[in-house]
Amino acid sequence: MKRVKIAIIGASGYTGLELLRLLLTHPHAELVCVTSRQNAGRSIAELFPRFSGATAAELTFITPDAESVAATGAEVAFLALPHGVAAGYASSLLEKGLRVIDLSADFRLEDPEVYKEFYDADHPAPELLKEAVYALPEVHREAIQQARLIASPGCYPTSVSLPLIPLLKEKLIDPATIVTCSMSGVSGAGRKADLSLIFCECNESLRAYGIPKHRHLSEIEQELSKAAEEKVYLSFTPHLVPVHNGIHTTSSARLIGEPEAVQAALEQAYGEEYFVRLLGKGGCPDTKNVTRTNFIDIGWNYDPRTCRVLLLSAEDNLGKGAGSQAVQSFNLICGFSETAGLQNF
Amino acid sequence: MKRVKIAIIGASGYTGLELLRLLLTHPHAELVCVTSRQNAGRSIAELFPRFSGATAAELTFITPDAESVAATGAEVAFLALPHGVAAGYASSLLEKGLRVIDLSADFRLEDPEVYKEFYDADHPAPELLKEAVYALPEVHREAIQQARLIASPGCYPTSVSLPLIPLLKEKLIDPATIVTCSMSGVSGAGRKADLSLIFCECNESLRAYGIPKHRHLSEIEQELSKAAEEKVYLSFTPHLVPVHNGIHTTSSARLIGEPEAVQAALEQAYGEEYFVRLLGKGGCPDTKNVTRTNFIDIGWNYDPRTCRVLLLSAEDNLGKGAGSQAVQSFNLICGFSETAGLQNF
Amino acid sequence: MKRVKIAIIGASGYTGLELLRLLLTHPHAELVCVTSRQNAGRSIAELFPRFSGATAAELTFITPDAESVAATGAEVAFLALPHGVAAGYASSLLEKGLRVIDLSADFRLEDPEVYKEFYDADHPAPELLKEAVYALPEVHREAIQQARLIASPGCYPTSVSLPLIPLLKEKLIDPATIVTCSMSGVSGAGRKADLSLIFCECNESLRAYGIPKHRHLSEIEQELSKAAEEKVYLSFTPHLVPVHNGIHTTSSARLIGEPEAVQAALEQAYGEEYFVRLLGKGGCPDTKNVTRTNFIDIGWNYDPRTCRVLLLSAEDNLGKGAGSQAVQSFNLICGFSETAGLQNF
Amino acid sequence: MKRVKIAIIGASGYTGLELLRLLLTHPHAELVCVTSRQNAGRSIAELFPRFSGATAAELTFITPDAESVAATGAEVAFLALPHGVAAGYASSLLEKGLRVIDLSADFRLEDPEVYKEFYDADHPAPELLKEAVYALPEVHREAIQQARLIASPGCYPTSVSLPLIPLLKEKLIDPATIVTCSMSGVSGAGRKADLSLIFCECNESLRAYGIPKHRHLSEIEQELSKAAEEKVYLSFTPHLVPVHNGIHTTSSARLIGEPEAVQAALEQAYGEEYFVRLLGKGGCPDTKNVTRTNFIDIGWNYDPRTCRVLLLSAEDNLGKGAGSQAVQSFNLICGFSETAGLQNF
Repeated sequence: MKRVKIAIIGASGYTGLELLRLLLTHPHAELVCVTSRQNAGRSIAELFPRFSGATAAELTFITPDAESVAATGAEVAFLALPHGVAAGYASSLLEKGLRVIDLSADFRLEDPEVYKEFYDADHPAPELLKEAVYALPEVHREAIQQARLIASPGCYPTSVSLPLIPLLKEKLIDPATIVTCSMSGVSGAGRKADLSLIFCECNESLRAYGIPKHRHLSEIEQELSKAAEEKVYLSFTPHLVPVHNGIHTTSSARLIGEPEAVQAALEQAYGEEYFVRLLGKGGCPDTKNVTRTNFIDIGWNYDPRTCRVLLLSAEDNLGKGAGSQAVQSFNLICGFSETAGLQNF
Repeated sequence: MKRVKIAIIGASGYTGLELLRLLLTHPHAELVCVTSRQNAGRSIAELFPRFSGATAAELTFITPDAESVAATGAEVAFLALPHGVAAGYASSLLEKGLRVIDLSADFRLEDPEVYKEFYDADHPAPELLKEAVYALPEVHREAIQQARLIASPGCYPTSVSLPLIPLLKEKLIDPATIVTCSMSGVSGAGRKADLSLIFCECNESLRAYGIPKHRHLSEIEQELSKAAEEKVYLSFTPHLVPVHNGIHTTSSARLIGEPEAVQAALEQAYGEEYFVRLLGKGGCPDTKNVTRTNFIDIGWNYDPRTCRVLLLSAEDNLGKGAGSQAVQSFNLICGFSETAGLQNF
Repeated sequence: MKRVKIAIIGASGYTGLELLRLLLTHPHAELVCVTSRQNAGRSIAELFPRFSGATAAELTFITPDAESVAATGAEVAFLALPHGVAAGYASSLLEKGLRVIDLSADFRLEDPEVYKEFYDADHPAPELLKEAVYALPEVHREAIQQARLIASPGCYPTSVSLPLIPLLKEKLIDPATIVTCSMSGVSGAGRKADLSLIFCECNESLRAYGIPKHRHLSEIEQELSKAAEEKVYLSFTPHLVPVHNGIHTTSSARLIGEPEAVQAALEQAYGEEYFVRLLGKGGCPDTKNVTRTNFIDIGWNYDPRTCRVLLLSAEDNLGKGAGSQAVQSFNLICGFSETAGLQNF
Repeated sequence: MKRVKIAIIGASGYTGLELLRLLLTHPHAELVCVTSRQNAGRSIAELFPRFSGATAAELTFITPDAESVAATGAEVAFLALPHGVAAGYASSLLEKGLRVIDLSADFRLEDPEVYKEFYDADHPAPELLKEAVYALPEVHREAIQQARLIASPGCYPTSVSLPLIPLLKEKLIDPATIVTCSMSGVSGAGRKADLSLIFCECNESLRAYGIPKHRHLSEIEQELSKAAEEKVYLSFTPHLVPVHNGIHTTSSARLIGEPEAVQAALEQAYGEEYFVRLLGKGGCPDTKNVTRTNFIDIGWNYDPRTCRVLLLSAEDNLGKGAGSQAVQSFNLICGFSETAGLQNF
């Protein structure tokens, strides 16, 4: 079976690590290039001893420049870089004929003004925004299949949007009443030496952060607005909790219509989707069932006392919220089975 | 200085353990009786080796019956028993002249019908409801000082009600729009051999539970309704997260009036309160700052995009949410300094 | 490619769960039978929602009896049962023509008297002991390939024996001076409702247990004695620490000869072994690099001040210490590639 | 009751934090000075919100120089500084008439050559070594009471030495056969932004480090040698495990004489000591019983198969291993009750 040559640009963080984990054993991928400015010259196995023994584990990190990446023969590049930095690489690599799957925020927003509002900087490559596809496969599968530039969604946006979109599309909830609380594992904050992230500051600690206007709100609202066909504003509170990986999201909104319609809408949207597991009314997803997978588990409930629908979701922030969802898009753009390399439990 | 003789009825769970921790070193308390049906005959130090060396650590657990408890000379009894069971003991001990601080739910609800609705049983001692005082000291201090029967509030209710009450009293938020998400440490589920509570089921796990009508809603809504002077229904979602102790609560509601009034209302209510620490606008409380204390930290924010006020609180579910708050009431009914035995950090 | 029909007997514990995780996606295995007395009638996905979506996840647990197991067409049975119970099933299933991979202790000891000494009971099927093969693949590969009855080693024994065997074979250490300390994750204690295993009793807790004569000593000493060609007694102290899975073992013993010979002995024994990763002198293995894999990482050091060799190993107690090592033996007895289904990271 | 004015020099790490926790509420201490180069100008409550509400929580960190410290009227200074840095401050503060309790390694070794060997630098103030007292109160109480310069022991040394000293003194074990394995919580590594200390690198990780010649060996061997009246070399392996605080130490050595003598020796040494809790033969100490206290729990066992005595100890690395032990010495040099401010559980 054909193997596509791939590069991972910025492979030394936790998203890079998860991409490595998946792509080192992907049946249709051949890893030919990994970059890391800080770790240039070291091998994958040296930086991440977990991978010692994998076929490509002796591959050496190189400094990221488009010329060198293209020289490796890579056909698809995954970018696991900070926002603002990714756009430049995307641009150069596209020029060199690679397809690009960007896991940063750089191409997720259609409107450069919104980018500026939320990221405090002019968009670094606005000319590419039109062609980029926001890659929630369960929502935009067809567009992804044709794309040259993939904007893989953020971790919170995936966990928040997937449950809400079907209800908004079916006008089952009042968009003005949505309130969302999420809890994220610490890996979501990145692999960096930061005092607030050390074990003794995170263990036995529960705290909100990034309120009231977390950057991920921009793409959440973009997607929810499209589904609702009206501008949606969301009350969103993320929390940091002491787990390695995993995001749990609880959203609620006022129901319009009958509670039964909720299950129907979810089933219509996701009944055939392999990676969305519907737990039904009363189902309470648990992150421990989805860690290291590409699944998102969704349960719901209805509270007649407040007339609110509750939507609960669990995913792995590094998985369906980052690395494995990007691999799902990779499978789509390459014409592979959508589950290739992702049937791990 | 006078020492009051006290008994802890049901001292072998985590609430009992926290009461022991506080009362074994309380300057005005003399522990004369601990009960535990299962552990009768064992000493405190045997069951909880942590306490070995404390003055009363060699005290032996006895079977709980009112006669024996009264015979120890106890003047005040703390009840750390399951709901439904506590009421009977409260009744007998009051008859024998003890004052009772009940940490169960039995006397928290004024209306026995609400008890029946939420606890699926007839109230075991409705005749005592009128005299019981719901013991949030920062809200009902004067009533507590006179009380013979204290109903010490639940862990979630304390964390949810304290931030919301001042805003409801001042009509600063729309009661119909309150949405609350809480996260609790595992000790909140009790000290019991339950498969769902073992380490490997809780560690690296995030999950909601008890929705949409957790039992604690009953007392939360009772207190919020009093503050709002209208019936309040709450959307409340508790979550279980892998910390030992601590509750973090995030509530939001539509603001009525000016954001500035929020800080003013909180300050008016709690500016002079030692155990409520106001972090101000933008403050994000962290449970790691309140564990093993009687403090509740409260921060808030305003989101002009959704016109919602955010209220964030952090407390120890075993502390301000149970044991230390009960000790605070003990100090009040005995006329001691309210902070006696509670100035630990 | 041929698929072998397999059964997992006793699939509701953590070892069963790990076997399911590996065998549900094993390229040459077809899961046709899972048993659990307690969970008969429930599906795999119902008991372990993590597996929902896997091909055989809708398979239903049946009560374990040899007749019914054989009726499913199973050719190989994995036994994840308590010691004492496993032997009876092994016996019946062998009679029905299945090959048996037993993960309990029942067939690990060659001498039924040692079984009696360590397990306080007569061996339940001594007639099978001669044919059973102690399945450390890196040590007894050829015997495993021919075996009908596999005794898959315990978690501590694997982590302790693999590093020590080469040094004992080469007479590089004094067997009378071996001292071993191990730390194990809580999953090693099993999936059971036990007060000492609940989150709040294990989290933030470090403790030794099972000393001075842990049951696993029996098989460790059997294997070390074979390697040393003399009776070896070991000082072994296991500790319980708050991680989900993983075992770290530190052994030391007085060196005989030159420090350089240590590395040579390890390389000679394991240089070609895929699942043993040698970290060399100074290497400090970390369980986080081996969790959910079949790898064991081994580092060593020499302390000239005490003339002791230090051997450090890290494995997953559910992986190389149980489930994946059993799958490695499965691959061997079926003639598959030894790494089939085990190249996950 | 008289209060002694105290300063904490270097109060922004975890040892400083624990000293603050204890000294902010100590009945005979008045905190008049805290220093932190990095946090000068900020208040204690600002840096450590946990302490907000404590009497001295509004005290402001100043830059550490002896002149300014002395100007605050401080009579006793606790130094929670890195080794090499502490000695200079000790020297200047002693000159200004303060008594000094140093928690660094600078004055723990009697021989400057050993300091050089283990710390790779000339001793910064060798002239003070003669007067410094190694402050294990249970071993050197009388010398401490007279001291002007206290060298408070390290966390590992306390946990290793206290159990071994009585057996060495009584010649009950062979010093040449001692093997020690310790496990430490992550706070032992300090409060610093270091990639290897972030949550995702420590959580679910078990690893040895600092072998074969950890710096703490120097003071352990010094104290053990004194007890044994011969030079003792130790095989010592420390491990990092995912708890916040706590050290568990397992030592073993060949018994000389009768097992019964072990308990007798421990009782003779510590039977009257409040802060040493003897769990007896078969006792397995658990760090969760000693965290945030000044207790060290000691259990032991004898393994007739290997003729080795096992000694198990549990302490809080920040407590008996650092902060609270320093406070115990403070009580001794000031003539207070040895347990003053330390009877917390």
